[in-house]
Amino acid sequence: METQESGEGFPTESIGDWASCAAEPGYRAAVLDLLGALAYGELSAFERLAEDAKFAPGIAEKAALARMASAEFQHYQLLHDRLAEVGVDPSAVMAPFVEPLEAFHRMTAPSDWLEGLVKAYVGDAIATDFYREVAVRLDDDTRELVLRVMSDTGHAQFAVDRVRQAIEEDPRVGGRLALWGRRLMGEALSQAQRVVAERDALSNLLVGGAQVQGFDLVEVGKMFNRITEAHTRRMAALGLAS
Amino acid sequence: METQESGEGFPTESIGDWASCAAEPGYRAAVLDLLGALAYGELSAFERLAEDAKFAPGIAEKAALARMASAEFQHYQLLHDRLAEVGVDPSAVMAPFVEPLEAFHRMTAPSDWLEGLVKAYVGDAIATDFYREVAVRLDDDTRELVLRVMSDTGHAQFAVDRVRQAIEEDPRVGGRLALWGRRLMGEALSQAQRVVAERDALSNLLVGGAQVQGFDLVEVGKMFNRITEAHTRRMAALGLAS
Repeated sequence: METQESGEGFPTESIGDWASCAAEPGYRAAVLDLLGALAYGELSAFERLAEDAKFAPGIAEKAALARMASAEFQHYQLLHDRLAEVGVDPSAVMAPFVEPLEAFHRMTAPSDWLEGLVKAYVGDAIATDFYREVAVRLDDDTRELVLRVMSDTGHAQFAVDRVRQAIEEDPRVGGRLALWGRRLMGEALSQAQRVVAERDALSNLLVGGAQVQGFDLVEVGKMFNRITEAHTRRMAALGLAS
Repeated sequence: METQESGEGFPTESIGDWASCAAEPGYRAAVLDLLGALAYGELSAFERLAEDAKFAPGIAEKAALARMASAEFQHYQLLHDRLAEVGVDPSAVMAPFVEPLEAFHRMTAPSDWLEGLVKAYVGDAIATDFYREVAVRLDDDTRELVLRVMSDTGHAQFAVDRVRQAIEEDPRVGGRLALWGRRLMGEALSQAQRVVAERDALSNLLVGGAQVQGFDLVEVGKMFNRITEAHTRRMAALGLAS
């Protein structure tokens, strides 16, 4: 473990509040992109979790996925309301991210209950990692919103118990789910790179623009590495080689 | 409008709290049935609304159905928690109602966005009517829970605006949706009768048992009539003959 990685912990210095930072058009566009991507991500997560509930073997399991889906919707609502509050059309801001997110879900449609659980867990965890990484780049108001959305995750713990139990009962399941976990991470990185390549303002926020405590491309690479490493540790904790 | 219909308004006299009423095994069994049916009804409503969101023509519409679905899940959670609180296994109590509710949804799967909207609106309204009717039969604690769940409905108002607008744009849509509304009500009554026929304790609560301010079969008929009449008025307000 390295010390003082820029993405871990929160900055001691504020870059200002939304009103002052948003005066810079590039920053404003980048944060709107970020909030739009997060908002549609939550809405599509709601939809997929609700759909994957059809695989649930019982009422309690169905309710557990429904609970996660509802939590995602609450996040969507917070992000949507902030977009409306700053005077933009939330649907228009989300629009560029519909296709990459739908593509991710199309490429990673679970074929059974356990694949759905692993996806719910991995998705929840990657989202939390990304929120934590990006929060340090943001003005005070946006950071507070992102941390608030993030603090309400972690509903996926039940998935861990169920998956671990299934692997104990039939170790062959572990091989199949390990492959599935790699595919999820691969598709997530692939769509994330597509978004970064297409959205200049958002990329500028990530690689550092005016008025932003920027980090360079090496830092972007490190961020993706940290998220990938965290994924690897989680998969191992789940009993899955990644 | 008749005055003093037994289902309208709330009783001035309490039949007692849950602890005292539940000492009577028939009453206890009936209320557990009722809560089980309501709980699974909310969970399956969540699932269907979330699935019907796939027909949404845009992000705002998708979010509106997701919002309704999440509200249904919150209701489920309240009912589930009460069941757990009184010491029963919520899944076991819900189990007898899975098949009638799944049958209802199977028979009334919307084929497009407008059918989905009408179903969301009608379902929400019938549920509210039924909650209001049944609340007056209940002990103080259970009534408070049922009214709390009910007070959070009404998310379906947006459906009214969208359906009315679609009929204005193309009046032929009204004929198809009127037929659809009749089918929804018919299937709902059919499954409700199936449940009442199969669940003795619940039927006893509805027709009046020991320690319950009972109402006779004529009153049950009146209750179904009131719900049907309210449905008719709502359909007319929506621009649909029922």
